[in-house]
Amino acid sequence: MENEILRALHARKSVRVFTDQPVTAEEREAILQAAFQAPTAGNQQMYTILDITDPALKERMADLCDHQPFIAKAKLCLVFLADCRRWPRAYRAAGMEPRDPGPGDLLLALADTCIAAQNAVTAAESLGIGSCYIGDVLENAEAMRETLHLPAHVVPACMLVFGRPTSQQQERVKPARFREEAVVCENVYRDRTEEELREDFTLRGANVPEFQFDRYIQAFCKRKYESDFSREMSRSAGVYLKDFE
Amino acid sequence: MENEILRALHARKSVRVFTDQPVTAEEREAILQAAFQAPTAGNQQMYTILDITDPALKERMADLCDHQPFIAKAKLCLVFLADCRRWPRAYRAAGMEPRDPGPGDLLLALADTCIAAQNAVTAAESLGIGSCYIGDVLENAEAMRETLHLPAHVVPACMLVFGRPTSQQQERVKPARFREEAVVCENVYRDRTEEELREDFTLRGANVPEFQFDRYIQAFCKRKYESDFSREMSRSAGVYLKDFE
Repeated sequence: MENEILRALHARKSVRVFTDQPVTAEEREAILQAAFQAPTAGNQQMYTILDITDPALKERMADLCDHQPFIAKAKLCLVFLADCRRWPRAYRAAGMEPRDPGPGDLLLALADTCIAAQNAVTAAESLGIGSCYIGDVLENAEAMRETLHLPAHVVPACMLVFGRPTSQQQERVKPARFREEAVVCENVYRDRTEEELREDFTLRGANVPEFQFDRYIQAFCKRKYESDFSREMSRSAGVYLKDFE
Repeated sequence: MENEILRALHARKSVRVFTDQPVTAEEREAILQAAFQAPTAGNQQMYTILDITDPALKERMADLCDHQPFIAKAKLCLVFLADCRRWPRAYRAAGMEPRDPGPGDLLLALADTCIAAQNAVTAAESLGIGSCYIGDVLENAEAMRETLHLPAHVVPACMLVFGRPTSQQQERVKPARFREEAVVCENVYRDRTEEELREDFTLRGANVPEFQFDRYIQAFCKRKYESDFSREMSRSAGVYLKDFE
């Protein structure tokens, strides 16, 4: 099956180097409105989006998000916050005494927030604007809260940076995904056997020169999963979760 | 700004009543492939998708997800699981001894999962196939784990049901979203004042006959936030979170 939308969803890849061309006010508006139109549980829009326009604040975010200078060069920088605070405040304004938000409210708000963010990505793609998710926005909870004035029950879900891709970025090959059977099960969950896992990763790595499962996985584990930033992300996420206990 | 993709993102609304027309194997494939092509942290695809094809299991899911019979009538039913288990298993297969997954891994995987799910929604929309998110899949952790054979570190992020909308569903008016200033802040988080909150909700409710802030908010609070299913969702989510402490 093929159509313009499916082609765009397939073509979209992360862009980390941007041309000098700005994202216009009209484009920004189209990106935000597409986010608002995303599905949202009970029409609650359980998110707040910070539009980071202050250059010094962009630099600070680049630093707090695992020191990635390209973030500060983005033409549009949006922080997507899961917001479990707006509705309880409205309940109180209407004279109710609502319970404190719990883990379920957080997980539902995180879903709402990431669903809206992905609509922003797809809208940008339709306008020739590239994007990159910054998961590192989860790190450094204390400094992030102070920097972005985050109150309790408001948690960064993801950050998105936008800009037009340089020709080098346009030509970059999108990394291959897993084959379907590696990530889809019929009816119930089933672990991949070790043999299947090796084949899943090896097939995915078919375009990587001299791909070798053990070497690749060991390097990835050290560079990502056992890295300082990954450990920091889990510590920091734990700080946000404490609000919901 | 307008183009086919932006129009589709705006037009998409939840569909809960489906015609008898099936979702074909080719359409299912296009929906899944679009999900796989979604942005994913470090190209990890930290999700597993369960394709619920067994009618008895669909009935059970309809029951476990706050007793919503329309779920069992879906032509395609996908459970999106945040999967913090596949990569550590691969690490072990490669001879590593990885740390246990932490809260950061879960939040990153939840984002990955919902981002992929939203691509599935947009792909379906492009094919004339309606969809509905079922957040209630977060409830009843113990029964859900048993029913779907979920091991530790695998958490339902959302469920999606698909099918072609009946004409009644096509004609249903999509509920209005908040105005931009209600959900977007420049640079740092700022609470809406009580007055602003009242105006945000009242403007959103402009098409609701005789909308009145206090009455609407009080009813919503009782029906949703203080409901049994909402409390159950938080209890249940807490069960999943325990894996990541």
